[in-house]
Amino acid sequence: MGKSRLEAFSDGVIAILITIMVLEMKVPHGEDLHALLPIIPVFLSYVLSFIYLGIYWNNHHHMLHTCKKITSPILWANLHLLFWLSLIPFTTGWMGENHFASAPAALYGVVLLMAAIAYWLLQLLIIASQGPDSLLKQAIGKDWKGKLSPILYALAIPLAFWWQWASLGLYILVALMWLIPDRRIERALNTNGT
Amino acid sequence: MGKSRLEAFSDGVIAILITIMVLEMKVPHGEDLHALLPIIPVFLSYVLSFIYLGIYWNNHHHMLHTCKKITSPILWANLHLLFWLSLIPFTTGWMGENHFASAPAALYGVVLLMAAIAYWLLQLLIIASQGPDSLLKQAIGKDWKGKLSPILYALAIPLAFWWQWASLGLYILVALMWLIPDRRIERALNTNGT
Amino acid sequence: MGKSRLEAFSDGVIAILITIMVLEMKVPHGEDLHALLPIIPVFLSYVLSFIYLGIYWNNHHHMLHTCKKITSPILWANLHLLFWLSLIPFTTGWMGENHFASAPAALYGVVLLMAAIAYWLLQLLIIASQGPDSLLKQAIGKDWKGKLSPILYALAIPLAFWWQWASLGLYILVALMWLIPDRRIERALNTNGT
Amino acid sequence: MGKSRLEAFSDGVIAILITIMVLEMKVPHGEDLHALLPIIPVFLSYVLSFIYLGIYWNNHHHMLHTCKKITSPILWANLHLLFWLSLIPFTTGWMGENHFASAPAALYGVVLLMAAIAYWLLQLLIIASQGPDSLLKQAIGKDWKGKLSPILYALAIPLAFWWQWASLGLYILVALMWLIPDRRIERALNTNGT
Repeated sequence: MGKSRLEAFSDGVIAILITIMVLEMKVPHGEDLHALLPIIPVFLSYVLSFIYLGIYWNNHHHMLHTCKKITSPILWANLHLLFWLSLIPFTTGWMGENHFASAPAALYGVVLLMAAIAYWLLQLLIIASQGPDSLLKQAIGKDWKGKLSPILYALAIPLAFWWQWASLGLYILVALMWLIPDRRIERALNTNGT
Repeated sequence: MGKSRLEAFSDGVIAILITIMVLEMKVPHGEDLHALLPIIPVFLSYVLSFIYLGIYWNNHHHMLHTCKKITSPILWANLHLLFWLSLIPFTTGWMGENHFASAPAALYGVVLLMAAIAYWLLQLLIIASQGPDSLLKQAIGKDWKGKLSPILYALAIPLAFWWQWASLGLYILVALMWLIPDRRIERALNTNGT
Repeated sequence: MGKSRLEAFSDGVIAILITIMVLEMKVPHGEDLHALLPIIPVFLSYVLSFIYLGIYWNNHHHMLHTCKKITSPILWANLHLLFWLSLIPFTTGWMGENHFASAPAALYGVVLLMAAIAYWLLQLLIIASQGPDSLLKQAIGKDWKGKLSPILYALAIPLAFWWQWASLGLYILVALMWLIPDRRIERALNTNGT
Repeated sequence: MGKSRLEAFSDGVIAILITIMVLEMKVPHGEDLHALLPIIPVFLSYVLSFIYLGIYWNNHHHMLHTCKKITSPILWANLHLLFWLSLIPFTTGWMGENHFASAPAALYGVVLLMAAIAYWLLQLLIIASQGPDSLLKQAIGKDWKGKLSPILYALAIPLAFWWQWASLGLYILVALMWLIPDRRIERALNTNGT
């Protein structure tokens, strides 16, 4: 009941966020290749955020697949997740324009951490709405990725003020960890013949 | 007939509005945390408007759920609502950049008032199209929230020129009032077994 | 075959255009009501263009309703229409920022004329694809609105260099002409019991 | 499984990209027709990119039509394609603002080349997922267009530093080559009675 509209709205917001980030890559004024040099860090942070938003879209897609009934708390938990994701273009732009300086790198982690918490809350609410034999609960199993990611973000935030490249390394590590396809939900769905 | 396209279009517009507002939060030029200070009021007004747009999307979603036939007047009443909602990023940006000054706070209320009136008009047209045993009419009941909100906005507008924080308090109050999940429509739908 | 995706894509583009126009209304720097004065012409041209895009969305919605098969030429004729519509935010912004000066008012008409021609081409292709007993052909009948609009735009364009307010009056006239709900297609659909 | 959401997301991103490009056409400050002159190259590069994105949307639409099951690699190959397409507004703006200078014209080709490779990868993965009697494989046949396009882009990139108008001619040639409707997939679908 209303699930398809929730999916469509979330997809719309994520699709807009993923493309709005490109607007932070301001067209340079020079006409030779050197004019592109200052844009390289902006481009690299765009690539990282594109991958993060792609991961969120992908996982969101799988998670909602298991969900049958949308309740009011689920609706708001979903909007809460979209809120934190909507700040990614801002933190991406700030980090890129300041060539991965400490404060922007830390703020980038804060938003990732909040998004991870929002995702975890949404997951909790969907599991609760599905009752004791929740398909999503079986699918995520121990959910070590979901538990490890916020810990790594929380480590990366203070680390940024000491050595920001280590933070950045952690952000890339978490992204790679999730890029490895998460077959758990697909497997659970196949097992249950849904 | 055509309802899904009306929903998809409205969702598209609201999804874009909710994300376009982030563009008003211009990436700061400094690279330390102090550079974020002037953005705080912009951020806070973004949070408030995000919640308002979320409430509109949520209520719109429930209202259209009860609607079976889209007529031309409903189409235009819906566009009229989207028009006022489309001005929210503008008033949000003006209010945030001027640190909640009087005139911007008043204009913020004017747009909220017009959106509330547009929503009420749309509701009226849907009820009229549903005939005497309108499911929506039963669902909203006395509709005290829908009646109280425009009154509070209308109070907040002149108040802003005297003490703008009181207006802001009213805007937050109305948002909280709506955030409490509106189970009326869900209940009516369940009762009628739809 | 693929109609829903064509509709969704068109809706997406029109939804984005209608909201992107608001970005042309730059947040003013002053914090009192006088700061809003220079924005009034931008706002008024936004209102006009919002109504025009609403009309196009509405009519496009009805036209595609009668269409059963999407061919390659229909796809491209649709993109051609979206191309001209995509220029409306640009001409709206230029007209608004220059307080309805002659050249911007003329260009506004040129884009409206091209969009009207593109719409007419799309209509022609859909009718052709439907064969001799085309539902759309019956629905539009003599199509006097569709024939009169481009003539009025073509008149308004040179007129703008002589007296731009007359052109503007014509643009408003055409919009009002279409705002009167176009029940022809709805009627034809009901008659044919589709 | 999930195909409609993949289509909707891709359509959303392409619809946003196609309209975001218009934002690169900054509203000129003058109010006479001469003020439009510097915008002409931006407009022309917008037209070219609009056609390219239209072609990608069209072909993507046909390709996914043959696809029944969305796997994780297909999801990511699709996001990879969207990534390169998302850079088109940037390269379009740079090329237009610098009146088709050498470096921007070359970069425009680089992004087109990468998008073509991403499209080819996605096609490969869909064919692989469909097994030996892949409908898509039959549909594309020898796929001479898909093979010729990247070769022409790869030629156009170095050529831009020598004579950029030749590169531009090649980009237009490839676009025209694809504009000729690709009936192969439609034909294969009809033959197989799908």
